[in-house]
Amino acid sequence: MGKVKNNETKSTTSLVPQLKVDWRELRRQKQKWKKEKEDKKALKQVKEEEKKKVEEDNKKKEESEGIHYTISVAVPGSILNNAQSPELRSYLIGQIARACVIFNCDEIVIYDEYAIPESLNDEALRRDNRRRCLAQMAKVLQYLECPQYLRKHLFPLHEDLQYAGLLNPLDTGHHLKESDESRFREGIVTNSVHPDKGGCYINVGLKKDVFIKESLTPGLRVTIELDTDQSSKKLKGKPIPPSGPKDRAGLYWGYSVRLASSLSDVIAECPYDGGYDLTIGTSERGDNVDEKIDSLPDNFKHCLIVFGGLKGIEAAIDADTKYSNIGDPRDIFQFYLNTCPNQGSNTIRTEEAILVSLAALRPKLMKPNKKSLT
Amino acid sequence: MGKVKNNETKSTTSLVPQLKVDWRELRRQKQKWKKEKEDKKALKQVKEEEKKKVEEDNKKKEESEGIHYTISVAVPGSILNNAQSPELRSYLIGQIARACVIFNCDEIVIYDEYAIPESLNDEALRRDNRRRCLAQMAKVLQYLECPQYLRKHLFPLHEDLQYAGLLNPLDTGHHLKESDESRFREGIVTNSVHPDKGGCYINVGLKKDVFIKESLTPGLRVTIELDTDQSSKKLKGKPIPPSGPKDRAGLYWGYSVRLASSLSDVIAECPYDGGYDLTIGTSERGDNVDEKIDSLPDNFKHCLIVFGGLKGIEAAIDADTKYSNIGDPRDIFQFYLNTCPNQGSNTIRTEEAILVSLAALRPKLMKPNKKSLT
Ligand SMILES: C[S@@+](CC[C@H](N)C(=O)[O-])C[C@H]1O[C@@H](n2cnc3c(N)ncnc32)[C@H](O)[C@@H]1O
Ligand SMILES: C[S@@+](CC[C@H](N)C(=O)[O-])C[C@H]1O[C@@H](n2cnc3c(N)ncnc32)[C@H](O)[C@@H]1O
Repeated sequence: MGKVKNNETKSTTSLVPQLKVDWRELRRQKQKWKKEKEDKKALKQVKEEEKKKVEEDNKKKEESEGIHYTISVAVPGSILNNAQSPELRSYLIGQIARACVIFNCDEIVIYDEYAIPESLNDEALRRDNRRRCLAQMAKVLQYLECPQYLRKHLFPLHEDLQYAGLLNPLDTGHHLKESDESRFREGIVTNSVHPDKGGCYINVGLKKDVFIKESLTPGLRVTIELDTDQSSKKLKGKPIPPSGPKDRAGLYWGYSVRLASSLSDVIAECPYDGGYDLTIGTSERGDNVDEKIDSLPDNFKHCLIVFGGLKGIEAAIDADTKYSNIGDPRDIFQFYLNTCPNQGSNTIRTEEAILVSLAALRPKLMKPNKKSLT
Repeated sequence: MGKVKNNETKSTTSLVPQLKVDWRELRRQKQKWKKEKEDKKALKQVKEEEKKKVEEDNKKKEESEGIHYTISVAVPGSILNNAQSPELRSYLIGQIARACVIFNCDEIVIYDEYAIPESLNDEALRRDNRRRCLAQMAKVLQYLECPQYLRKHLFPLHEDLQYAGLLNPLDTGHHLKESDESRFREGIVTNSVHPDKGGCYINVGLKKDVFIKESLTPGLRVTIELDTDQSSKKLKGKPIPPSGPKDRAGLYWGYSVRLASSLSDVIAECPYDGGYDLTIGTSERGDNVDEKIDSLPDNFKHCLIVFGGLKGIEAAIDADTKYSNIGDPRDIFQFYLNTCPNQGSNTIRTEEAILVSLAALRPKLMKPNKKSLT
């Protein structure tokens, strides 16, 4: 036993010079240690509780600061054919993108208002043109939504993007310059991997790439949350869903783009759980928005606002085989609204109607701190 | 007495065959005549009263159907310099024109946001560019406002109009086709005069020119009210003020265009009696429109809504020598409004802001049957 004790004391070098064991002192010391240990434990607990509280507060903050509803806009691709030159064709897409980001839209759906079934072969030529409209609109919308520093990686030269340089930038919060500070950044997975640990590096438009522990496919676009503690030389972060910045900090983080082969598919192929719970069709023949605005619900989760083409939404309904029994657009949409009563022009163009309609509906639909339903 | 009576009876040939005067019958006849005369008089009176009533009703109808307030929009000419090609420069003017007609605006004022005094000669070049912006914007706006059938008479070829063919038509109520029926029409005074009676013929876009009694200078643009009774072969009408169709029938009849050499001149040179009695400035730094909209008066007569350029209205105030003491735009405008709270883009372009702002203000400002103040 003595030996063992000696060995023990040996190892605690500070006690070595004491030739005689002072038991009282030792007891006091032991009590001190015990207290210190208890204190440490208590401190640890306090710290843990604090950490938990901070986490909870963060969560609460995120819940109150976050925006927990979505706005989708649907437009027919065919409206591109109304443009009078290739340059103006691109410009029109830019106008749609701008209108949607001004009003913080989450999704733009481009639909085929003619909805001609594949089988009709004599329509091939016309359909080709339709396909081209849909594809070009999708490509230019995606190009504009993408932060500038990622474009060269994600968008190779393409004739659809020929005039994209002439378009007005979206100038949204997720289009960050190198000098901008931001907790979130859009990035692209690079080819470099960490030699031992795995993980990979993400180009987020900063001088240094950000290291994440996950191994992702190079070339992938990903939303990154940067670690708040950036004391090490390396920039570190973690991948989050693209909806993260909006869900958790109420930041507008761009839109997604979806193609739909008919008006009915706009609604049926909703990417959100539970589908669209508020659908609004727009038309000069709709109900006066001033009379209906108060009856719009403000506790929706996923709102869809549909615009028509040259011949209005009615034409898209007529062309849709799934809507063969529908006589009135009000049978499809919960609300069918004239958002510009007493218009001074006989027709409002689709790109104009988006700005006008979203401005008219904004006070009711787009409250920054609308209560969450989740 | 008898002789006289005989003479009297002679003159009434119907009585000639009667050899003997039937005094009773004669009295009855006289009474009948008297009654007939009285009836006629009464009928005439009734007719006159009816006519008066119709006129009064018309006046009342015109007063209730007419719109008795005006909306003016002011934009800086310099925004043309933000366009990325000559084609898009024209397109931008078209967007402004469209936004203004969609919301039934009566006046577009183009102002010089730099307001550099004539004396500064070293600024000549820059000023020249400013002048060009103002002049081009005015010309294209006027061209678009003019009904198609009058354009070739009023707008000779000009480089400013080079891309005007690419612009979207305004499609307003006063742009009439030959087949359209309308009580009012825009016209141009032709060279033909009536050989004897004076007066002149107006080309109003119909097969036949309209005759008016007045002699007007050939080449003048004039608003014509066509006579309701068009039974004669000749089309007849009379010249009325351009505000007539709106004042009397509530029809939107296009806008006028005015140039202002500074922001202060936009307000000082108001063409309406009594000046603008409601002035609204717009800015992302303005007050939240949702909080202010209820306090906007709805009994104004002449409302002015001012938009800024790339650097906002503040820059136009800073450049204006008459505003050297003004620190806050609220000292100039009764309302200074952010019409798009929580915008998802860092900047809203002027041409977008016009649509967004007018859509936001429409429910309060532009009631079709707003009570007249006159
Ligand atoms: C050129 S307009 C369609 C006009 C077509 N003649 C019609 O009768 O519907 C294109 C689209 O703009 C929108 N729009 C036009 N005017 C509108 C209004 N007053 N209120 C709401 N939406 C409108 C609708 O979505 C419409 O389908
Ligand atoms: C490009 S913006 C000017 C931006 C400039 N950086 C500023 O701070 O004012 C051009 C014009 O659009 C209008 N505008 C832009 N955003 C607006 C908003 N949220 N509310 C009202 N008007 C706005 C204003 O008239 C503004 O002068």
